[in-house]
Amino acid sequence: PPIRTTGIFESALAARLEPLVSSLKDVQVAYLPAYTGVDIRLRSTSTGDKGRKMIESAACKIETLVDDLAYGRNDVTLEEVVGRLLTERQETLALAESCSGGLTASRVTDIPGSSAYMLGAVVAYSNEAKITQLGVKPETLKAHGAVSEAAAREMAEGVKSVFGAHWGVATTGISGPTGGTPEKPVGLVYLAVASPRRTVAKEARLVPHRRLPHKAATAQAALNLLRLEIMHHA
Amino acid sequence: PPIRTTGIFESALAARLEPLVSSLKDVQVAYLPAYTGVDIRLRSTSTGDKGRKMIESAACKIETLVDDLAYGRNDVTLEEVVGRLLTERQETLALAESCSGGLTASRVTDIPGSSAYMLGAVVAYSNEAKITQLGVKPETLKAHGAVSEAAAREMAEGVKSVFGAHWGVATTGISGPTGGTPEKPVGLVYLAVASPRRTVAKEARLVPHRRLPHKAATAQAALNLLRLEIMHHA
Repeated sequence: PPIRTTGIFESALAARLEPLVSSLKDVQVAYLPAYTGVDIRLRSTSTGDKGRKMIESAACKIETLVDDLAYGRNDVTLEEVVGRLLTERQETLALAESCSGGLTASRVTDIPGSSAYMLGAVVAYSNEAKITQLGVKPETLKAHGAVSEAAAREMAEGVKSVFGAHWGVATTGISGPTGGTPEKPVGLVYLAVASPRRTVAKEARLVPHRRLPHKAATAQAALNLLRLEIMHHA
Repeated sequence: PPIRTTGIFESALAARLEPLVSSLKDVQVAYLPAYTGVDIRLRSTSTGDKGRKMIESAACKIETLVDDLAYGRNDVTLEEVVGRLLTERQETLALAESCSGGLTASRVTDIPGSSAYMLGAVVAYSNEAKITQLGVKPETLKAHGAVSEAAAREMAEGVKSVFGAHWGVATTGISGPTGGTPEKPVGLVYLAVASPRRTVAKEARLVPHRRLPHKAATAQAALNLLRLEIMHHA
């Protein structure tokens, strides 16, 4: 069963798992990278029940070692995982998207029954929309720019408050192909999650500099930050 | 070159084109249906320059006959077509999405340079968000429901006004798999476009009753209604 991870490059993931992997007997590990994450595939040289048990045992060890990165198995998606966590907790979600342009909302609403926890989203492409729709302070945009940790924090807190949701998630970045500068290159993204308890923000420099994979990687990173906050700090 | 159409079933499109198609000499017409529309492929029994000319002539006749359905050729997408129209006119767009859940916004922002005309979007999944974020009247929702022509109109006009855009587009419908009733079955969608001149709304009963194809068909229908309004009534 492939283990799905996100938030780390293939080489760094392999390095992190190396001590564990080299200690595994009769289990081979392969890494399958995509823009949205790396799948880990396990194979046993033993067959039948014995092989299955060895694979299962190795999979559990890997998941424990990289529980910040591993969000599920097989074809599970992050929007499913997040949906399940919110449903269990009976909590609600609102999204503020700049560079991901609605893709995160679209993924969340792909899940049947998502209307139970998904209250809505604001795609705020312009600075004005960030101010009027999300309550971002004009001074914040002036001092730090729309692509900044401060803006992401205010977007997440703003959308949470505007929709009256338990959780607010924000993305702001430079998807390209143009719009990059030496200080703020194409690929730079700030993500933020506002919860009932605190607001966290994260800077990411996503590799794909083409627009669509950058949007995909941004949405994935935002959903994973939300997953980690719900699991560890809610 | 395939001619891309949307908004009609394969059989109805074939029936509408039949008189023209049967008059075409040495050009064969094939229909390739998908959830988001039907592509028309043309082939000539003649080869080389002669064949190319016959195909081009037939393609132009077909496009003229179904200009309400045919939005482009080859791999062009509706978001590209709409983006080009808005860029030419230097006009701006805002979206209010219920059942399409952000997919329309995500498609519009897939286009490089879309930040020049795309101001933003509101994904209003809950009734409360429709009221507070888009200015839909509570009485409208009470009298007609959230899935209604009246609600779609107010959503389109509301988002246009909220973002200060030239164009507002709205979607509201029942994507399923649950939530349908005999009067309002799964698949039912209302679309609306508010322009500087008027607001139009359209009811559609989209075939796919699975969630993802229904979202895809809804976004496509909304973008085509916008295209037609810009081209014919702006």
